[in-house]
Amino acid sequence: MAKFPRSIELLIEQFRKLPGVGPKTAERFALSIARKKTDDVEALIAALRGVERSLVTCTTCHTITEVSPCTLCTDPRRDDAILCVVAEPQDLLAIEKSAAFHGRYHVLGGVLSPIEGVTPEQLKIKELVTRITESPAFAKASAGKQNHRITEVIIALDPNIEGEATTIYLKKLLRPLNVTVTRLARGLPLGADIEYADDITIADALSGRRVV
Amino acid sequence: MAKFPRSIELLIEQFRKLPGVGPKTAERFALSIARKKTDDVEALIAALRGVERSLVTCTTCHTITEVSPCTLCTDPRRDDAILCVVAEPQDLLAIEKSAAFHGRYHVLGGVLSPIEGVTPEQLKIKELVTRITESPAFAKASAGKQNHRITEVIIALDPNIEGEATTIYLKKLLRPLNVTVTRLARGLPLGADIEYADDITIADALSGRRVV
Repeated sequence: MAKFPRSIELLIEQFRKLPGVGPKTAERFALSIARKKTDDVEALIAALRGVERSLVTCTTCHTITEVSPCTLCTDPRRDDAILCVVAEPQDLLAIEKSAAFHGRYHVLGGVLSPIEGVTPEQLKIKELVTRITESPAFAKASAGKQNHRITEVIIALDPNIEGEATTIYLKKLLRPLNVTVTRLARGLPLGADIEYADDITIADALSGRRVV
Repeated sequence: MAKFPRSIELLIEQFRKLPGVGPKTAERFALSIARKKTDDVEALIAALRGVERSLVTCTTCHTITEVSPCTLCTDPRRDDAILCVVAEPQDLLAIEKSAAFHGRYHVLGGVLSPIEGVTPEQLKIKELVTRITESPAFAKASAGKQNHRITEVIIALDPNIEGEATTIYLKKLLRPLNVTVTRLARGLPLGADIEYADDITIADALSGRRVV
């Protein structure tokens, strides 16, 4: 049976390791690379090298960054009292894009998942507890506000089984630490059709209803 | 507004150049690269380099290959009399996988598309005409069969507007060359539901019906 040249097969194999890439997509990617000019392939290689060389994990919030501690952790204008716990750096970015949160972040690096074998030890949970119990690493440069203690922890995980389980786990863990533990509101997203919304979302929207 | 580190942004930009990759997918890819171990990123880089360095275009059929002329063009067991015209190397591979064709191939490198500005000059059409009119480049090593002339050209292009237009263009062009010009059959694919098949496919299946 005919096959792709060996070098294409090797590249397909590598592309398949990217998230959500199946054999057909990997094949398309590899063939598009095979048709590209040397300069374009070199640009991709340079970008890969750039990421590989310049990125580190922030020692405070554990997001991906080029400087550690990251600019979000060192920004003196942010509120040290509120800590937002997210699963991945992209969740942090999404919340930052909303411009609706001005506290600090903590990236867990995933969610608990017995199926995928993700245990609390593999996530930055111990570090989260330490951040809350110990004095804040970055005191506000701006004076006036003296209380740098974390008073609220917002758990911002995806509303699915793993996210839910992780939220409950964290809630139990953080309860003795004298912090308010909250989580993101559930309800209908903007532009949703009530007709097509699932039962749980409708139930959440009803139980969380607000006075207009 | 918060953004990804510069190196991630650059990688997202590069990944967006892959076929069918939008901003969100490119972001996922770049972040997955950022989380990978150095060895894994190096393996991807090596595979990219491998493709970039080892691949050439077959001077005869214009497919992607590591040796030119490619093994399909030099295989003495294949039938020189039938030439199958495809748009891209992956179409050639798909036909080869079917094991239903034993002639030679000719890869156009695309299809005519006024919208995307693809003209006959950008495809290997001149080369196709030359292959048909001139004597075959690779005479059969096996004796007995003396006629190496191309007698049939199978146009195997995707059944869509561009593929159809290219087929008609090629048919007109090849008509004076004294070759039989055929194209792939149209009809219901294996596993299809007549109920959900589109009108044109049903019409094609009816007009191309066969005695059982």
